[in-house]
Amino acid sequence: MIEQVDKEINKLVKEINYEEINHHLPVLMGGKRLRAKLILTIAKDNPRAPLLGAIVEMIHSASLLHDDVIDEATVRRGRSCVNATDGSKKAIMLGDILYAKAFSSLTFFSHEIAYTLSSAVVLLSVGEMMDVELAKSFNDNEQKYLEMLYLKTASLIEASTASAALLIGKDKDTYGLYGKNLGLSFQIIDDILDITSDEKTLGKPVMSDFKEGKCTLPYIYLYKSLDDKGKERLKSLHAKELSSDESLWILNAMKKHHAIDKSFELAKRLTKEAGEAVFDNMELINILDKMIQRSY
Amino acid sequence: MIEQVDKEINKLVKEINYEEINHHLPVLMGGKRLRAKLILTIAKDNPRAPLLGAIVEMIHSASLLHDDVIDEATVRRGRSCVNATDGSKKAIMLGDILYAKAFSSLTFFSHEIAYTLSSAVVLLSVGEMMDVELAKSFNDNEQKYLEMLYLKTASLIEASTASAALLIGKDKDTYGLYGKNLGLSFQIIDDILDITSDEKTLGKPVMSDFKEGKCTLPYIYLYKSLDDKGKERLKSLHAKELSSDESLWILNAMKKHHAIDKSFELAKRLTKEAGEAVFDNMELINILDKMIQRSY
Repeated sequence: MIEQVDKEINKLVKEINYEEINHHLPVLMGGKRLRAKLILTIAKDNPRAPLLGAIVEMIHSASLLHDDVIDEATVRRGRSCVNATDGSKKAIMLGDILYAKAFSSLTFFSHEIAYTLSSAVVLLSVGEMMDVELAKSFNDNEQKYLEMLYLKTASLIEASTASAALLIGKDKDTYGLYGKNLGLSFQIIDDILDITSDEKTLGKPVMSDFKEGKCTLPYIYLYKSLDDKGKERLKSLHAKELSSDESLWILNAMKKHHAIDKSFELAKRLTKEAGEAVFDNMELINILDKMIQRSY
Repeated sequence: MIEQVDKEINKLVKEINYEEINHHLPVLMGGKRLRAKLILTIAKDNPRAPLLGAIVEMIHSASLLHDDVIDEATVRRGRSCVNATDGSKKAIMLGDILYAKAFSSLTFFSHEIAYTLSSAVVLLSVGEMMDVELAKSFNDNEQKYLEMLYLKTASLIEASTASAALLIGKDKDTYGLYGKNLGLSFQIIDDILDITSDEKTLGKPVMSDFKEGKCTLPYIYLYKSLDDKGKERLKSLHAKELSSDESLWILNAMKKHHAIDKSFELAKRLTKEAGEAVFDNMELINILDKMIQRSY
């Protein structure tokens, strides 16, 4: 079924009718396509599900293109970012084209579906801005961090599952809640993997979040557990290139104070809540299980 | 009536519900608001016209925010650009938020209106890319240049007038044609003013188009009229800072070969065609007249 989504993406890209775009198609075709898979799983057999999935993946790709410009990222999904190979300007323009094409295609769906998804793009764009603001100094406010995660990552996943439900006349809120909690949990696990995984698996340097100024959940939990001296040391390492000694100190301190475990506990709790919303859909439960297993 | 548009913009911005945005409101409130005025003029008395105008102005502002990042512009409408004062990243994010908010608000209009306007955003984004591509070398292809003008500037004006017509059940194509030709003519006059006006009136440096690599119509016409030696000299000045001697040479050559006059003739012809499409609407004719008079 995911091939159907790729076919729809290809069709949408062709409709844009500008040679240059085809060249960048691999950017659109890469990744896990989690959002499209969720839509296909919920709105199974609905003939318009692949197009809806394609639109959401297009929105997601557009947001990543701009995200990478803003983070000055060089590597994404194991390959060079468009901003790194073709320059920031190309990445901005390409993102704008994909966003606009996604929105114009969305107008063929019901008002509620189009509104649900386009409103999520407002939230994710605000989330991007909040992410940048938070990274300017050491943030130890868990609530603020989770709000940003919701806006930047979970809102589009929530809107994807909600609109898939709308497509087949099922309850928008139930499926939205599944998507929201899955999205939060997904991002928390991503944040954990940035610390615990290796460069090859990640497709980008390890601990790059903290170097970029992003105090993800494990750092927030670690900070809370440290004594004043430790707090000061952690803060002093914020948004800097880390020596191997410094990285090791952080890793050991996280181990000692169970900062990773606590983050993982929250991810599991959110996953559980997501599962409870759709307890009778085994395929959706399986997606949650697989996601949680990523972190081992 | 234009105050109604500002009120709607204010409302939309408040709905975004992120403090940071209010700070940038002046960016949205500046400018001629040509597109909103056209909508109000065509869909006069329709209670939804101000909201539609606000949405289109929001789209236009978003496109300018990104445009200025791409052109590395420092001044717009006589004030500093967001990318110059707050950095490119802020301008990208702010543009994304405005685009998304505009699209989500558009879903409250009919499919045809939402599709007409969002499709125009695809065109204008492609036009932006084409503009950048064309500026990479000296372009003497008039057809290509006019295609880019249509995509980058006229398509959104065409969609604005067409969707205003749809709002009141009038013919979309007739009003679209008016908007398209007005848009082309408007941009050609802008291109002329970049050469013939002064810095104070323009709110930006004179002849900045050519310095940025943009061969607007007067340059294309001039190139065609020059002998081989002149052609070579003009090409050698492309995309460079110009000395006053060089600027003067271009200006005198344009005078001698009537390059400005020819450009202005095309603008007048397009204005005439625009007027013929809506010959019975004096207000729309007046807008055309005022626009043409800008160039004296």
